[in-house]
Amino acid sequence: MKIVVLGSYQTKFGELWDKSLKDLIVEAGLGAIKDAGIKKKQIEVVFVANKLAGQLVEQNHLSALVAEQLDLSVPVIRIEAACASGGVAVAQACTSIYSGLYDCALVIGVEKMTDLAVDQIAAGLMTAASEPERQSGFSFVGLYALMAKKYLAQYGAEEKDLAWPAVKNHGHASLNPKAHLGFAISLEQVEKSSLIADPLRLMECSPVSDGAAALVLANKKIKAGKSSVYITASSMASMSLSLENRTSLTSIKSTQQAALQAYKQAGLGPQDLSLLEVHDCFSIAEILALEDLGICPQGEGFILERNGQLKLGGKSPVNVSGGLKACGHPVGATGVKQLVEVCQQLRREVGQRQVKGAKVGLTHNIGGTGGTAVVHILQR
Amino acid sequence: MKIVVLGSYQTKFGELWDKSLKDLIVEAGLGAIKDAGIKKKQIEVVFVANKLAGQLVEQNHLSALVAEQLDLSVPVIRIEAACASGGVAVAQACTSIYSGLYDCALVIGVEKMTDLAVDQIAAGLMTAASEPERQSGFSFVGLYALMAKKYLAQYGAEEKDLAWPAVKNHGHASLNPKAHLGFAISLEQVEKSSLIADPLRLMECSPVSDGAAALVLANKKIKAGKSSVYITASSMASMSLSLENRTSLTSIKSTQQAALQAYKQAGLGPQDLSLLEVHDCFSIAEILALEDLGICPQGEGFILERNGQLKLGGKSPVNVSGGLKACGHPVGATGVKQLVEVCQQLRREVGQRQVKGAKVGLTHNIGGTGGTAVVHILQR
Repeated sequence: MKIVVLGSYQTKFGELWDKSLKDLIVEAGLGAIKDAGIKKKQIEVVFVANKLAGQLVEQNHLSALVAEQLDLSVPVIRIEAACASGGVAVAQACTSIYSGLYDCALVIGVEKMTDLAVDQIAAGLMTAASEPERQSGFSFVGLYALMAKKYLAQYGAEEKDLAWPAVKNHGHASLNPKAHLGFAISLEQVEKSSLIADPLRLMECSPVSDGAAALVLANKKIKAGKSSVYITASSMASMSLSLENRTSLTSIKSTQQAALQAYKQAGLGPQDLSLLEVHDCFSIAEILALEDLGICPQGEGFILERNGQLKLGGKSPVNVSGGLKACGHPVGATGVKQLVEVCQQLRREVGQRQVKGAKVGLTHNIGGTGGTAVVHILQR
Repeated sequence: MKIVVLGSYQTKFGELWDKSLKDLIVEAGLGAIKDAGIKKKQIEVVFVANKLAGQLVEQNHLSALVAEQLDLSVPVIRIEAACASGGVAVAQACTSIYSGLYDCALVIGVEKMTDLAVDQIAAGLMTAASEPERQSGFSFVGLYALMAKKYLAQYGAEEKDLAWPAVKNHGHASLNPKAHLGFAISLEQVEKSSLIADPLRLMECSPVSDGAAALVLANKKIKAGKSSVYITASSMASMSLSLENRTSLTSIKSTQQAALQAYKQAGLGPQDLSLLEVHDCFSIAEILALEDLGICPQGEGFILERNGQLKLGGKSPVNVSGGLKACGHPVGATGVKQLVEVCQQLRREVGQRQVKGAKVGLTHNIGGTGGTAVVHILQR
């Protein structure tokens, strides 16, 4: 069964010091409902994606917070899957509609991160890694640096190749008024930025952002929505939390598994995609994603980046929103925002950054270093 | 569609200083799989319920932790709904089977709480309340004390009436080798225990516990399991997070709504229940639950407690496991454990605390002061 995307909404991403967790929930939730052109009482179930409100805002039990703030009494379910919380929440909303129990679901992804000190935020983020990784003093940029080091050695890529995804995604973000870092950067700027964890530099890392995104999903019984965008595949897979328990540092099996299932569900392949929103928390992550999603063979992702063929105007542009790198990465919101972007692209609503003739889009959202992976395919 | 309960398992509840979060996950997960008599590879999706590992064990992203520890690559979804996390996870597992995507689901509820200082645990627990409640200096016992005060005034109950649920549930727990506080207490002991938040006393509060519980749920395609226990109703509802936004302090609408739906789904009523496991985080909560679940009219729950008719041997015994009060309350595990108890009662496996001729059981799990409520009905 196809799921209809009735409505979508993204708040501005950024350091939103004047907006609370509640403000973001309400803006995104009501924004998506308004965009769908339905009445609030048509919402039968809500999924809310959030990773860190417990640690950073002292607020768990977001199910009841959402019910209260949106004045709803329907089931509300909070999903946490680290940086894949949003993708998993969308997948669960699809499952809930497949079940026949609900005709219409609201999904809200939200994260409020920037009001605290950097060490508190870093400690919160590291709860998505394993205990041995934390105890060894790793940060996430450190874990991804290990993967990047290995990748460079294994495939003969250069450090400069890690900069291309950042340059491209900032270029895209300069066309996105909702982006956290909506400005273009040059290769030289990336190369001159501080080395954070060798070989990854500051400008190859996604920022800490506040923000929310929301979707209204439904089956065909609900007559509303501006145009016909469908979710034709929704797929998830898991793998070990710790890098140490994996057989490869340069490919993420959970992404491969979720992608294979998704292509099968939608009855199409990587060659059919008009655009992709992939999980570029660090530049190396985008390169690995290209390979694991089957856009190119293993070890060749960096060549696609180098050739510039993933930019807006190319055959299958990647991260036209700006990606996590430049649109921003409010953790729980990210996976939902990816579908918001693809939905609005397929509806041809995004102005300057419109992918011409966009018909099929893929979203790819992972948690931690890939312990959870979610892939969705949308079509018009 | 009926959901078959193929397997169930509960770890010992208590201050388990020699067991980690991982240990509890593995023991419960493998325990339920073994009890179901299936192979691990038959599990197609996993739901893990947990409230506080992010704050208390620095561990979020339990989806990947579970995948790693149980060596699974299927979708794993972590649910957080405060003290209702377990019930919501069971409900989501049912939804996932209804969807037709999965034939067999594992649900694990787990919480590791007792390794930290009391103020850290208390701060963690309060993330399930609202921001105004936290800022006013409330604890959960304070919030429930407000409800208890109002109840006593409204219905002419006495402070002593708040002690009966605790006395009964400790009596039950003395027959449960898995209970955290497996000893009987007298009314006098409760009445002499410290006043924590007037009118609630220490022995009317559930303890802080470690523990896990797990279930294997399936549709009828999976041929396994010891005997036929079914989930015939699975229902959830939400209401405001804050007490201040409610019209009543002495009834919980979300429970009423979830119960009505559940009775309708199962095609039966409160009079048909052989036993109930209800959410007695504080003694007043059990009394309110009796009324909101329709076991008696509003304002008469305390009379049932006073009369002793809810004890093992009575018509519809309540909290034969010992309840949250005496079996213990490892938050994420509680809602799952309630179904484990009812399942094992319906299978006639619980020895001394067996409810004779048990055919129909209800579980009732709430988050916070009722912002989330979940009701399940099981039948043999």
